[in-house]
Amino acid sequence: MGEKAVVLVSGGLDSATTLAIACSEGYEAYAISFHYGQRHRVELQAAKRVSERLGVASHIVVDVNLRQIGPSALTSEMEVPKGRSPEEMTRQIPVTYVPARNTIFLSLALAWAETIGARHLFIGVNAVDYSGYPDCRPEFIEAFERVANLGTKLAAEGGRFTIHTPLIGMTKKEIILKGLELGVDFSVTHSCYAPLPLGKPCGLCDSCLLRKRGFQEAGVTDPLLAKWTSRHSD
Amino acid sequence: MGEKAVVLVSGGLDSATTLAIACSEGYEAYAISFHYGQRHRVELQAAKRVSERLGVASHIVVDVNLRQIGPSALTSEMEVPKGRSPEEMTRQIPVTYVPARNTIFLSLALAWAETIGARHLFIGVNAVDYSGYPDCRPEFIEAFERVANLGTKLAAEGGRFTIHTPLIGMTKKEIILKGLELGVDFSVTHSCYAPLPLGKPCGLCDSCLLRKRGFQEAGVTDPLLAKWTSRHSD
Repeated sequence: MGEKAVVLVSGGLDSATTLAIACSEGYEAYAISFHYGQRHRVELQAAKRVSERLGVASHIVVDVNLRQIGPSALTSEMEVPKGRSPEEMTRQIPVTYVPARNTIFLSLALAWAETIGARHLFIGVNAVDYSGYPDCRPEFIEAFERVANLGTKLAAEGGRFTIHTPLIGMTKKEIILKGLELGVDFSVTHSCYAPLPLGKPCGLCDSCLLRKRGFQEAGVTDPLLAKWTSRHSD
Repeated sequence: MGEKAVVLVSGGLDSATTLAIACSEGYEAYAISFHYGQRHRVELQAAKRVSERLGVASHIVVDVNLRQIGPSALTSEMEVPKGRSPEEMTRQIPVTYVPARNTIFLSLALAWAETIGARHLFIGVNAVDYSGYPDCRPEFIEAFERVANLGTKLAAEGGRFTIHTPLIGMTKKEIILKGLELGVDFSVTHSCYAPLPLGKPCGLCDSCLLRKRGFQEAGVTDPLLAKWTSRHSD
């Protein structure tokens, strides 16, 4: 078994592919997810399924109540924007931005890594086909890695953490093709920010639109949509 | 009213003095504390009292369960070291170290700052009379400030966060004298890592010993101890 790696798994297709990449590179994967007050908490079931399918050593869901800190469209009843164009996504940070979310998630993942003796962290951030969030950029990740290598006991004792972002320069199409190549079952993932009852994707939020375009460009049918369509016609 | 500042308030004497400094510099203070599974959660009552006395605009206690992540002597039944000498404290990071704690706390404080429109954060870290924790060093704080100024919407839109560490170069004696000068009532603070029933300080953990030495060097009686002594003789 290879070195331990903590992988942030939200249950979406980016983190599923990231987890598959970590496994394919020989890491012993420890999946971490967050129950942070998200309205689309159905994603945690997806995170569990994704982690199980890919055979992680352990999967934990950490409670951190970001609703106590303040509103975002992802943690309140505020309306999730629908039907934004790719240009709008690049130009404007949407109301679905959760303040400092990746900083918080990476901090907690770092704490777990230090606890279990893992020196590697994997996060599926992507700076190409994304919603314009500032905490998905390479310079942010580099800065966080520096924090990890200054603010921990392991670092003080001469160790070193590495933060891996295998998707950072990939398009959504490439992420999907990579995931398929590694055998990821995208039918068990969840991307939608504002799911309908039973967890059905809305089809119009940034996350659904980016996913839809990715599958279109990859020339592949999204197995998740196929699943919902077949359910609907049951 | 001055600019808004988020101040991390644990309920100990360092954070009480830090809060008093922020107020004395004219900031409108927003206090944030964390219920993270600490065994000395009596400190949260102290944080509330300290915040009230100093007239903060708001005080929130955020739930983030670090017990889910792994053991530390502060979040489990592991024994808290007692009677360490100042040399031992400088030489060895103790089992009371909670992995990445200040990174996690600063991340959550940053999220709240961004939410309420505060560009200033105050944290009472101290690199002189301290337990040897790596996340109390100036280079760690600088690295985190960089993260804050890359990973947030405010920063992406041209704003800037500043992290203030007014105690970083002060001795415990100086912190106590500064607090007294600013009218801090240290009798409502709490420092002990392993309090006895009713919250009475153990007197022997690193935190109690550093506090004791600080008051001795300042030539002042610790009003908290005086309170417990008078209770005892009731």
